[in-house]
Amino acid sequence: MSIKASAYAHPNIAFIKYWGNRNDVLRLPVNGSLSMNLHGLHTHTHVEWSNTLSHDSLTINGVEQMGRALERVIEHLDVLRERYQLQGYAAVQSENNFPIGAGVASSASSFAALTLAAAAHLDLSERELTTLARLGSGSASRSVPTGFVEWYAAETHEESFAESFAAPDHWNLTDVVAIISTTHKAVGSTEGHQSAATSDLQMARVARVSERIAICKSAILQRDFAAFAEVVELDSNLMHAVMMTSRPALFYWLPASLAVMHLVGEWRREGLNVCYTLDAGPNVHCLCTSDHASEIANRLRSLDGVLDVRTAGVGGGAYLDN
Amino acid sequence: MSIKASAYAHPNIAFIKYWGNRNDVLRLPVNGSLSMNLHGLHTHTHVEWSNTLSHDSLTINGVEQMGRALERVIEHLDVLRERYQLQGYAAVQSENNFPIGAGVASSASSFAALTLAAAAHLDLSERELTTLARLGSGSASRSVPTGFVEWYAAETHEESFAESFAAPDHWNLTDVVAIISTTHKAVGSTEGHQSAATSDLQMARVARVSERIAICKSAILQRDFAAFAEVVELDSNLMHAVMMTSRPALFYWLPASLAVMHLVGEWRREGLNVCYTLDAGPNVHCLCTSDHASEIANRLRSLDGVLDVRTAGVGGGAYLDN
Repeated sequence: MSIKASAYAHPNIAFIKYWGNRNDVLRLPVNGSLSMNLHGLHTHTHVEWSNTLSHDSLTINGVEQMGRALERVIEHLDVLRERYQLQGYAAVQSENNFPIGAGVASSASSFAALTLAAAAHLDLSERELTTLARLGSGSASRSVPTGFVEWYAAETHEESFAESFAAPDHWNLTDVVAIISTTHKAVGSTEGHQSAATSDLQMARVARVSERIAICKSAILQRDFAAFAEVVELDSNLMHAVMMTSRPALFYWLPASLAVMHLVGEWRREGLNVCYTLDAGPNVHCLCTSDHASEIANRLRSLDGVLDVRTAGVGGGAYLDN
Repeated sequence: MSIKASAYAHPNIAFIKYWGNRNDVLRLPVNGSLSMNLHGLHTHTHVEWSNTLSHDSLTINGVEQMGRALERVIEHLDVLRERYQLQGYAAVQSENNFPIGAGVASSASSFAALTLAAAAHLDLSERELTTLARLGSGSASRSVPTGFVEWYAAETHEESFAESFAAPDHWNLTDVVAIISTTHKAVGSTEGHQSAATSDLQMARVARVSERIAICKSAILQRDFAAFAEVVELDSNLMHAVMMTSRPALFYWLPASLAVMHLVGEWRREGLNVCYTLDAGPNVHCLCTSDHASEIANRLRSLDGVLDVRTAGVGGGAYLDN
């Protein structure tokens, strides 16, 4: 027996952030989040299930993986084996068309593509696929549906799913990523999520997140950049406020990150449609409308401390290719 | 009739921060705070009350003041006239031995010295003087008592006073100020305090401040630098978390501030007794034990973005000179 499938998925950038779980094993987030997929960047993953294999294996960009990367994939395959009574082991081959250090985390696209490919023969709904992807990496749930996506916080596995609320062509938003550092982050997201509850500010951040989600969704649906910018920067600042008041404190911003954040505010006051958001890392995602993207990219490239700039529009959902 | 007196007061640096009032008119803070006075820096203020003057006047370093600086002094003198049935107007001459841009705000020492000099003939208790100084500038209450000082949050004017809990020679703490910018801050503290309540995080910051005060006081009393460093940096981060999530957001950190903050953490892990705290401005107060002060100052001087470095030990209280 051998079952093969492969799938593509894009990474995504969150506008309203995911930070902290109510259940670390099921990766049930304490709060809902919003994002868009990033066009042009993708992970492509091929999975072969076979009952002649003696163990699971993983290659990334052709390189055999051991250690934590392989373990996380095995854990994810174990979840699928158990939930769907699958037999045998899987050979997983994954390729990213963007390097580690591209300013965009690859875990979301990786677990979205892995989930689609590994479950291709199970005929699952998109909703169910988003919940399974979530078990591998929380934000991977948001890389399954197309365009602009909401991922719901809930008490159960089945109810914490993600769905699209606007197609990629709804609004020409662009993520111009100012790459400030290409080194691996000191504290990964998984550990980071576990530290969120040690901040005195986490509950206050979460308390009004539904309101921010409503404001952000409405701003996107109405293509209201000013309202979008205000809530996106606030939500990013709230997450970093929690991070830097966790025990021990997590500081993801570097001096050049702060310099870009300050400039983005000035550029917006000048009339450019641009705002910033930062994930658990120093790179600054400058979200803008596509008409201002090349101007923003040029300005970013001229700054000390900005190593490189990458631009991505709104991407579609994850899909199988055969 | 003419009544003359003059007084000295030091500025202070807060370890547990004052940010936000429960009553803006009386400057009753939402939370208590801790500080030490800064030796070597002072304001010296001479006040002459006279019933032959037709108005209040103010010179700072010999320069006649108009506008907001004069208004705040007049408002403060009005408070004294009303509370103590004083007659006439006052000529106020104030000198700072540290420039604007020295990395240390002058409002605390200014209103402490002004209060002592203007009320010299009233024979008030130190406690009462701290409450009066508070009406001019909240943190001025902490510049009246000697050494290490606690200022209490309370519901009434009389109960929100400050008092010393350790003398200057109790512990050889030193404030090595990395001066990052000498320009005036965009948003002054008075406005800043009014914006604190617009942050979703302010109540959460305040909720556990009594605990942080207890930990910090105990660390000072036991001269426990590690415990002191942890709570001081946390409290500074909590205040800046509130600032940067206020609406509109207040960012006082500059890129070089963040660079110094990161380095201070590294230096502490190396074994130096040093931690950081920042007020409503970009300058980084590197608090250390005096044996490490010159090493810290030398390291700071070598950094890009650090314009100057000033060092101050623990100062005494405000006093009249005759």
